[in-house]
Amino acid sequence: MSHDRHEAGFKRRTRVDEALATLLDAVEPHGRTETVPLADADGRVLAEPVDAPAPVPGYDRAAMDGYAVRAEDTFGASDRSPNVLRTTDADDRPVGRGEAARVHTGSALPDGANAVVMIEQVETVGDEVETFDAVANGENVGPAGEDVAEGQRLYEAGETLRPSDLGLCKSVGLDELVVYDRPTVAVIPTGEELVQADPAPGEVIETNGLTVSRLVERWGGTPRYRAVVTDDEDALAAAIERDLDADVVVTTGGSSVGERDLLPEVVDGLGEVLVHGVALKPGHPVCLGRVGDTPVVSLPGYPVACIVNAAQFLRPAQKRVGGTSAAHPPTRRARLDRKVASEPGTRTFARVKLSRDDSADDPPFVATPTRASGSGVLSSVALADGWVVVPEPREGLDAGDVVDVELWEVTE
Amino acid sequence: MSHDRHEAGFKRRTRVDEALATLLDAVEPHGRTETVPLADADGRVLAEPVDAPAPVPGYDRAAMDGYAVRAEDTFGASDRSPNVLRTTDADDRPVGRGEAARVHTGSALPDGANAVVMIEQVETVGDEVETFDAVANGENVGPAGEDVAEGQRLYEAGETLRPSDLGLCKSVGLDELVVYDRPTVAVIPTGEELVQADPAPGEVIETNGLTVSRLVERWGGTPRYRAVVTDDEDALAAAIERDLDADVVVTTGGSSVGERDLLPEVVDGLGEVLVHGVALKPGHPVCLGRVGDTPVVSLPGYPVACIVNAAQFLRPAQKRVGGTSAAHPPTRRARLDRKVASEPGTRTFARVKLSRDDSADDPPFVATPTRASGSGVLSSVALADGWVVVPEPREGLDAGDVVDVELWEVTE
Repeated sequence: MSHDRHEAGFKRRTRVDEALATLLDAVEPHGRTETVPLADADGRVLAEPVDAPAPVPGYDRAAMDGYAVRAEDTFGASDRSPNVLRTTDADDRPVGRGEAARVHTGSALPDGANAVVMIEQVETVGDEVETFDAVANGENVGPAGEDVAEGQRLYEAGETLRPSDLGLCKSVGLDELVVYDRPTVAVIPTGEELVQADPAPGEVIETNGLTVSRLVERWGGTPRYRAVVTDDEDALAAAIERDLDADVVVTTGGSSVGERDLLPEVVDGLGEVLVHGVALKPGHPVCLGRVGDTPVVSLPGYPVACIVNAAQFLRPAQKRVGGTSAAHPPTRRARLDRKVASEPGTRTFARVKLSRDDSADDPPFVATPTRASGSGVLSSVALADGWVVVPEPREGLDAGDVVDVELWEVTE
Repeated sequence: MSHDRHEAGFKRRTRVDEALATLLDAVEPHGRTETVPLADADGRVLAEPVDAPAPVPGYDRAAMDGYAVRAEDTFGASDRSPNVLRTTDADDRPVGRGEAARVHTGSALPDGANAVVMIEQVETVGDEVETFDAVANGENVGPAGEDVAEGQRLYEAGETLRPSDLGLCKSVGLDELVVYDRPTVAVIPTGEELVQADPAPGEVIETNGLTVSRLVERWGGTPRYRAVVTDDEDALAAAIERDLDADVVVTTGGSSVGERDLLPEVVDGLGEVLVHGVALKPGHPVCLGRVGDTPVVSLPGYPVACIVNAAQFLRPAQKRVGGTSAAHPPTRRARLDRKVASEPGTRTFARVKLSRDDSADDPPFVATPTRASGSGVLSSVALADGWVVVPEPREGLDAGDVVDVELWEVTE
């Protein structure tokens, strides 16, 4: 694979954390907002904090089935010596002295009452109830605001909404939310060898643009999946310039240091290259830059390298443009069943297939590295369930090591 | 909360695993399929296995920049004694004996050639090249089918597609896939106290139906979010019957054993109750049934109980109807900073908030249980990042325990 030959071409490879920090420093949130109905807000990013306009519950409520009473009317009652109260219909008027109104769990506490005697503690006789229990003021009552207080800060701006968040927002009386617009991401595949279908010898079907476009969607953005641009400086420059109104421009291919790797030069001509060459594997020939205010992420053309770099750099940049930050990806703990080699000083992403092993107590998953020869082998990532990240100081991982497998594409 | 009072009403609580197995036994995949373009197939479930119609690459290709040759013409070459070959343009005709054609990494190996000499190992002199290296047949050549062999089984039916899968499918020449229709899930909120907005005392805003509808979407289904049905047997029966053409019917509320808990009776009248009452907390009063061929999942009305049961029962049932199975949810390993109580014999879902603690080496996350009083407290789940599952044999977890936090709503 040519990237091995090219290694000599990189004077220095920037560490992943430093490269990412440099990129994020150059990225500003776009700040555009829209108001959407709650039902359409799943996965969107809040542009304003959310405070509860109303408490939940909005009223004192019975926490038990029983009778709403004035607590003082039960004082002195006991198993041997019940107090007798008149039943009343609380829908008509407040509960008065010496009265009791039937309530169910969750129903509003009637005016005048301040406690509930549990149904198990009373006997009804005609239109009277005998209470065998004395209750304190507030007993068996859920006060207004017990779940959410009025004015309580529920979310800060930047929160990415989930289904249960929508439920909570609705419960406090909200029916729409102000969210950031989805960031637009132009995805430009490059390479004279690329075709959309029916490859002749020497031609390759374009896949990176399709994959990256779908990742952009999963990460909350709106992709513009562009036609393939050939390896020509003017054509590449024109393609990038046409999309500078997007929030992020991503290219795939041509990001290394070979004679046909034109992207770094093109980005340098139009704007500024921030980082070229990162100490990660597979995929070090990534180029991170900026043209005007638009970040330009040039991903390598090798499919696995492309995906690894998209997850490391495009995802956080897109999240930041969209007003939030990238959460650490979810993981699954598993035991490696083969060793993984890596080079100290380089962050290595080893693709693994997960299988369940219920005979193993902890963890119950086994991670098997997929065929890992070369960063061009798309099947090694597409047929994998996640990757194990070997941090820079480590020199590989051993069979039997327990690892956190990052799931970079999750099925819920 | 009323469910405590109701506990006596359940003669027996079925264990979670048994309840789920019983439900899944009663669920059949719907089997309906459609053909979708690759670009629209993210998250869909394959209805047929996928075999590669063409190999990748489709031809032998150069694995290095250099010169394509017949290997035998290099035999005997060395640093001191190079072999001399004539350069030729491989676009015109096959590489003949004693000839060499310039190739770049990834380009098709010209006819006639069977190996590549690396560019670093030759010197060009006019229209001749001197090779200082002998290469074997196939050396520096990536053979056709190196990544994917023709006819290779890539995916089995039932696989849920991700972005990189779409890339792999495209790379072998596919442009559409046969997937299962998204399962339709009717979501019917029930309860006479529920309103859509502006609650009066005693009224509560409907949230469960909204939350469950959005979860159904995340899980790959198409929700039908219905209007609230009041606590009336005829109205409930009519609502369920109207939606029996859906693949799954879900109700929220009225699933316990109180006088206003009508769902178990209604389902029993229309069809069959399979399980009523499960040993999980919060949320034991779930009712799992079937009317005709349609599974009917009656979730409890307490918001947290509703969500916990939706994740435990609706998700796997919906996945099975849709032709796949529910993957174990992704997790994040974290250290508990407070103890979690649980009752032996009951599977407990303790909601936790995650925070990053970079000073801690492993794991770098801290899990803080959210205010957990009562299963009605929606904020305890909406403001949480996940839940810790305490298995049946355990009696709680201790502060300092390292746990796997399940993320039941993931932000990618």
